[in-house]
Amino acid sequence: MTAISSDVATLCRQAKTAQTALSIASTGLKNKVLKQVSIRLVESIETILAANQRDLDAAEANQLSTAMIDRLRLTPTRIESLAAGVDSVAALPDPVGAIVQQTRRPNGLLVGRMRIPLGVVAMIFESRPNIVIDAAVLCLKSGNACVLKGGSEARYTNQVLVSVLHEALNDCGLPVDAVVSLTERSQVATLLEQSDTVDLVIPRGGEGLIRYVTSNSRIPVVQHYKGVCHVFIDAGADPDMAESIVVNSKAQRPGVCNAAETLLVHRSEAKEQLPRLLGALAAAGVSLVGTEEVRALCPNVEPARAEDWDEEYLSLKMSVALVADIHDAIDHIRRHGSDHTEVIVTESYSRAQHFVAAVPSSCVLVNAATRFNDGGQLGLGAEIGISTSRLHAYGPMGLNELTTMKFVVYGTGQVRA
Amino acid sequence: MTAISSDVATLCRQAKTAQTALSIASTGLKNKVLKQVSIRLVESIETILAANQRDLDAAEANQLSTAMIDRLRLTPTRIESLAAGVDSVAALPDPVGAIVQQTRRPNGLLVGRMRIPLGVVAMIFESRPNIVIDAAVLCLKSGNACVLKGGSEARYTNQVLVSVLHEALNDCGLPVDAVVSLTERSQVATLLEQSDTVDLVIPRGGEGLIRYVTSNSRIPVVQHYKGVCHVFIDAGADPDMAESIVVNSKAQRPGVCNAAETLLVHRSEAKEQLPRLLGALAAAGVSLVGTEEVRALCPNVEPARAEDWDEEYLSLKMSVALVADIHDAIDHIRRHGSDHTEVIVTESYSRAQHFVAAVPSSCVLVNAATRFNDGGQLGLGAEIGISTSRLHAYGPMGLNELTTMKFVVYGTGQVRA
Repeated sequence: MTAISSDVATLCRQAKTAQTALSIASTGLKNKVLKQVSIRLVESIETILAANQRDLDAAEANQLSTAMIDRLRLTPTRIESLAAGVDSVAALPDPVGAIVQQTRRPNGLLVGRMRIPLGVVAMIFESRPNIVIDAAVLCLKSGNACVLKGGSEARYTNQVLVSVLHEALNDCGLPVDAVVSLTERSQVATLLEQSDTVDLVIPRGGEGLIRYVTSNSRIPVVQHYKGVCHVFIDAGADPDMAESIVVNSKAQRPGVCNAAETLLVHRSEAKEQLPRLLGALAAAGVSLVGTEEVRALCPNVEPARAEDWDEEYLSLKMSVALVADIHDAIDHIRRHGSDHTEVIVTESYSRAQHFVAAVPSSCVLVNAATRFNDGGQLGLGAEIGISTSRLHAYGPMGLNELTTMKFVVYGTGQVRA
Repeated sequence: MTAISSDVATLCRQAKTAQTALSIASTGLKNKVLKQVSIRLVESIETILAANQRDLDAAEANQLSTAMIDRLRLTPTRIESLAAGVDSVAALPDPVGAIVQQTRRPNGLLVGRMRIPLGVVAMIFESRPNIVIDAAVLCLKSGNACVLKGGSEARYTNQVLVSVLHEALNDCGLPVDAVVSLTERSQVATLLEQSDTVDLVIPRGGEGLIRYVTSNSRIPVVQHYKGVCHVFIDAGADPDMAESIVVNSKAQRPGVCNAAETLLVHRSEAKEQLPRLLGALAAAGVSLVGTEEVRALCPNVEPARAEDWDEEYLSLKMSVALVADIHDAIDHIRRHGSDHTEVIVTESYSRAQHFVAAVPSSCVLVNAATRFNDGGQLGLGAEIGISTSRLHAYGPMGLNELTTMKFVVYGTGQVRA
């Protein structure tokens, strides 16, 4: 065993041991830790900014992209809003210990299912240092220890943020190993082998990172590859609603995974609605590609390549196609979608219900923008990520999704006959 | 690509395509398939028994163990009870399409979570041919396609059972590819790579099979390694209840995973209760191993080796130790348990609640036998297996655990500000 692999294995084992204490910590104690984290973040603004400046200087020297440098940059306002986020997680109900679905069996046994922490959760992420705090507080609140592997470009910032977490844990008499930080890329391969101590891996970053983790992990992985989200304008859709939902879905924040990439319009509606929809999108700065049929009606649209239908633009660009009916739309979504978010705009009760039943994506909406597929917007309070894989969790993951349920049975001496 | 790997990939892709039809099949249609399976099983008793005899002849020629031959053997009664099991799954509520946890957000969005099938479920199992029917009907009822790889020792029996399933699907106008059968051991490695089409793998069999699948799968796996289940007799436990629970947990059916392997007795209770408990166990045919402390009180007990505390005997043997208190008992369970089933026998309210909260196993019982950790007994109706890993499902898995939940959002034109 090399020095690195024994280090990583030891650190993960320490996290597992620390998790035992965390798993039985009271809600009050866990909230006290979070309160300490929030206070210390605000008190440490100068220290955090100084460390962040070191990372920013290195990033500029290494000629990282402007987008990457922007994700890396913290400001007093960003740190204050990070602290406010911690306070809001403290205010959420504690999922641990809740008993759901309790029933009484014919023999008198009371059978319920109790939420318990998953155990040790590993997060592997890139650039954005706020994930250190966001992920750790969600894990701590749900009784999980965490192993954090951030990007090396945020090394100094992450280090200060981890020490804020450690001080808060220590202050409250909880083991600091409940938050383990790995700093070297070379440690990732070994981390992915620690299936005896780590219960879940969540990679957050580009598709390459996620594919690497999925292919190499001996630990269960929750994946989120990409968001190729669709808006389908049904026959008879309300034109005002169609316009505002399409523009909001595409242009309100185009760089995120729940922004729409493809517009599908019912053929019978095309003449009436397409010029208006595409005009509104163009006015919002969206560049459009489409099929020949679309271009015949709206000559400003560029021709779509075959690859366009599978692409997550993450920018002000949208692909447009006509469909024969709802079945054709669903078929397109099944072939090209990424199981993320799909919207139907319709006035038809039966087609709304059919769309909801037949589209297998993690979030299906009727008459609302794709942008609502977000833990906060859906009422989870906060999210640690969005899963587009079906095992364990599907869609945004909040505190409940960081738990599992064990069976709890209260008897009065029952035995089996 | 070899012939085998392209075959397996093609079969899995066909299963995925068939699953689309199944995912939107009505409950009535799915129940009609199950009814057909049940009828055809009874009608085909002679054909099934003839195929089974071929497998039994080969098994005897190959000198398989008596236990293995017994698991392989079907009888008219066993086939009738298999058919009755199919009828009982048909009678269970259909999980697909149920919306749970629907809430209204401040902006008026109605947000719920709808149960949908996982997709394609692969089962890899040994000897017992009834798993073909049990697994397939649970998958079909929950809208999942399945890929079944049974043991080669049950080859001819499995083949007839799969054709019963295919005829039933075909009769009801559903694609027969909803049940795919693999027959060669050499296909398993390729199957475990089909993460684009297969959503979950459930291995059922010995620990070796489960470890092989876990180590080699690119698809999520639900594991069930072994059941090292504990019964803890607390200070002040009712002696009659303690005796009946311990004896039932160990001896009612010792060869199954939810039978108890280790008895832990509170030291203060030992003089009073231990001789009676161990006497009752011995009278039930249980051979006992224990610590020196136990042997000082009950000289008939053999000395326990260090390995005994981690062993799943699957036979009429039990290990016995004394503990200082509930914390000591929980500590023993955390060190030696397999996250399966643990029981406390107690009259203390606070220690019952502490045990339930602090023991992280998939099923924790107060004053009831370990033998109740079973899908049927816990009210799931039927089970496809028991998970001792925490992701996705923990404990017995029924129809609900063969589904995932997507977010369903009903709006009236909402967009994000």
